[in-house]
This record gives sequence, structure tokens and C-alpha cells, in this order.
Amino acid sequence: MQEQIIERHTIAVLVDNEPGVLARVIGLFSGRGYNIESLTVSTVSEDKTVSRISIVTSGTPMIIEQIKAQLDRLVPVSAVRDLTEEGEHIEREVALIKVAAEGPQRRESLRIADIFRARVADTTVGSFVFMVTGTQEKIDAFTELMRALGEVEVSRSGVVAIARGSEVL
Amino acid sequence: MQEQIIERHTIAVLVDNEPGVLARVIGLFSGRGYNIESLTVSTVSEDKTVSRISIVTSGTPMIIEQIKAQLDRLVPVSAVRDLTEEGEHIEREVALIKVAAEGPQRRESLRIADIFRARVADTTVGSFVFMVTGTQEKIDAFTELMRALGEVEVSRSGVVAIARGSEVL
Repeated sequence: MQEQIIERHTIAVLVDNEPGVLARVIGLFSGRGYNIESLTVSTVSEDKTVSRISIVTSGTPMIIEQIKAQLDRLVPVSAVRDLTEEGEHIEREVALIKVAAEGPQRRESLRIADIFRARVADTTVGSFVFMVTGTQEKIDAFTELMRALGEVEVSRSGVVAIARGSEVL
Repeated sequence: MQEQIIERHTIAVLVDNEPGVLARVIGLFSGRGYNIESLTVSTVSEDKTVSRISIVTSGTPMIIEQIKAQLDRLVPVSAVRDLTEEGEHIEREVALIKVAAEGPQRRESLRIADIFRARVADTTVGSFVFMVTGTQEKIDAFTELMRALGEVEVSRSGVVAIARGSEVL
């Protein structure tokens, strides 16, 4: 049997902002067993009629092609762009991470936050909430370091993505 | 007829990270016509078995109570927390905003980015990609200012949220 290569692709989808459109896009993935590693959604046009969904998925090249073709077939979808395939792009994520730590662990959490350019969003005598932005890998690394210092609570956004260069979608 | 007050609530939902759970949560909203203003989702536990969904919704107090009760009834849901009701909390969002601008518009975009503490994530002779983090209102304001300077492309994450104070969910 031929070995199947699993690729990670980041796809930008522009949709008409009508009721149920997000349910349909996600239903397409869950109904066919396609993987969603990350999903973000927000209105992006001035008049709020257009939303942009950024999806990070993974699969064989054939599965990725199927996903894009099926997204393209949904009526409220006006554009499907495979940012991974089309060239260089930028990915970012934001996380709020609360760490309950005291004494040396507390000081250490501030030192690590400084290295990661995280900002303090809230503080009590026994806790900090840090806001950190960056790639998924950076946020993974920051979260793991905080877990070693105390109990943590995490709220992460998932990935936003945009193509490099001057072309405007 | 009594006037109905529409409230905006931010709800954190912890779910078992099993296939289709996001489709079920979103299906609950779209099936009953509940509004989703913003939704973010990510795995949050070290072993990746737990995901956290942050939902910003709006409705009358009765609708908000229905939403929470119905979320609570879904089997993969282990916790539903109304951050708006429970006290002070922090909300943040990240956006990547590409602006195609030249000459004075280009310099003006850098000045505005500086005021908003946005970082340059990519640059060409005719464009910037800025990364900006903050509240929804801050990102709305930044985006509108950039629209005045040139063509824009926007990818926004939606809201992540966490309660203030030292309690860890």
C-alpha cells in the first residue's frame, strides 16, 4: 500500500453572513469526518454582510482537494483560498492564560511572560492573566511553561491567517 | 407589550474534544435562531481531551437562560459559565489587517498602527499587514481607520474571554 502523506492546510473562506452558514460549513467537516484543527470566524466587510472563516485542517492531498471543492459548492460561499498552497502566509493566534502561582513561581511567570512579550491583563496576589499572541507553536510553548508553575486556565482563539504580499482578497 | 431588553453575554463552554461536538453546539444556536456574535474554540487541556468554546451571544434574559440550559444538557459539555453574569472578565481578539496604501496614506497607516500598538507582520512597497490585539471595539476602530486609507483585507479571530480574579476554571 502506498504511504499517504498528511498535510496541514490553512484555508480562508468568504461567506455571506446569513443564519446557519457556520453550521453548514462545520457540518460539512463533521459529516464527512474531515479534521478541523482550528477555526475562527468574524464579519469582515464594512456592512457586515461578509464573514471570513479561517480553517486549519489536515488530510491527504486528495482529502484537501475534496474539502475545497465541497466548500466551493456551498451557496453562501463566495471564495475559497488555500493559503498553504498559494504561497507564503502569516498565521497568528491570541490566548488569555491565567496562572495561579505564588512566591518564586510567580516571579518566574513574569520572567517567562517578558520573554514571550506577553502582557499582564489582570493580577491578584495569587494569580496573573497573561495575553499572548503569536503562532500556535509559540502559544503552545508559553502554555506548557505556565503549567509547570501552577494551575492554569486557558482561552485560545484559534488561527487567523492572511497571505503575504500586496494582493487584497 | 412589555419592552424586551437585549443583553450581550459572553459564555465559556468546556466540552469533551470528540468529533462533531462543535457542530452540535453551533447547531443548537442555528436550529433555534439564537444569535452568535462571536465564537472561538481551541483545545485547552494538556492531553487535548478538553476544548473551550467562547461564545458571545445576545438576547432577552429569558433567551440567555434557555441557551445556557440547553448547552448544559449536551452530553459532551462539562461546564457552562456565563462570564457576563458572574462578574468582571477580560475579552480580547486578534486581527490581521492588510492595507494597500501608498504615499501619505502609507505613512498615516504606520502612525495609526503605532497608536493602536499594532505590529507590522508583513510589508511590501504598496502594502502592510498589521497584527492588532484588543477588545472588539478597538479592532473595529482600527479597521475603520485603515479602510479610509486604502483597500483592506481582514482576518479576525473572534473573542477569547476569561474571568478576572484568581479562581481557575
